[in-house]
This record gives sequence, C-alpha cells and structure tokens, in this order.
Amino acid sequence: MKARVHVMLKSGVLDPQGEAVRHALGSLGFEGVQGVRQGKVIEIDLAETDTAKAEAVVTEMCEKLLANTVIESYSVELG
Amino acid sequence: MKARVHVMLKSGVLDPQGEAVRHALGSLGFEGVQGVRQGKVIEIDLAETDTAKAEAVVTEMCEKLLANTVIESYSVELG
Repeated sequence: MKARVHVMLKSGVLDPQGEAVRHALGSLGFEGVQGVRQGKVIEIDLAETDTAKAEAVVTEMCEKLLANTVIESYSVELG
Repeated sequence: MKARVHVMLKSGVLDPQGEAVRHALGSLGFEGVQGVRQGKVIEIDLAETDTAKAEAVVTEMCEKLLANTVIESYSVELG
C-alpha cells in the first residue's frame, strides 16, 4: 500500500523557500502570484495492506520523524 | 485560485533524502517500509481565476523554474 504525506509549514511560520520562489517567479515575469508556500511530499511504500492500520502507522511516522509538529502540519493520503 | 505542484525525482534517479528517511524509519522500529521517495510540494496562490489559463501558467512555471525536467517530474493540481 502506498501512502503520501504532505508536510507544510504552519500558516504564520515564515517560509523563506516559498518567498524565494515567489521572488524568482516575479523576476521571470510571472504576474499575479499572490503567495507561495513550499513543503515536502513523502511517498512511502508499505507492506501493510489494511488501510486503517497503515494510516495509524504513517501518522506515527509523521509524529516521530517526518514532521516537526511545532512548526509543521502534515496530512496523510492512502491509496 | 490555488495551485498545488508536486515535484518528484523521476523513477530511476537516486533519491538520497528518501533513502535517509527509509533508514531512519527502520532505526525507529517501523517495519514493512519497502521504499520512500521524497519530493517537493509548492502551493501557489494566483490572481488568475480561469482554470485553463492558470494551468497553462503553472505548467510554464514548472518548466522554467520549479522542476528540473531532466531528473524531476511534476504534476499540477488546481482548486
């Protein structure tokens, strides 16, 4: 079973990578870019086939390793 | 209109970040992790309200800046 985890900085936390992308898009002539946030996406291939168990395991992975929950939020998609 | 871009290393391209995550998950006692790939997710807030135009603009952003199309693939979601 495949899981996809999105890890984004929480809103309110300064995102210098996103700001750099926004400025670069402006320099390249792209107009109307009101905001950019950059995060991580992690695709995990699991041996587990039970959706509920897989979701519990991946959530634990996020809490322990993948996200810094002080400044980052995460979401888990399975499929 | 919001756009979300996923940028992943193409399959076959070595992903040291993903490998590091896989090893770290193993060290933490998570079993059954068969593979991990790590990529970027970029959320862009656009002034454009037309879906077709926004998709064309974001695709151009990917080609010019957001993805290195030699080694990375990207996908665009609008909504």
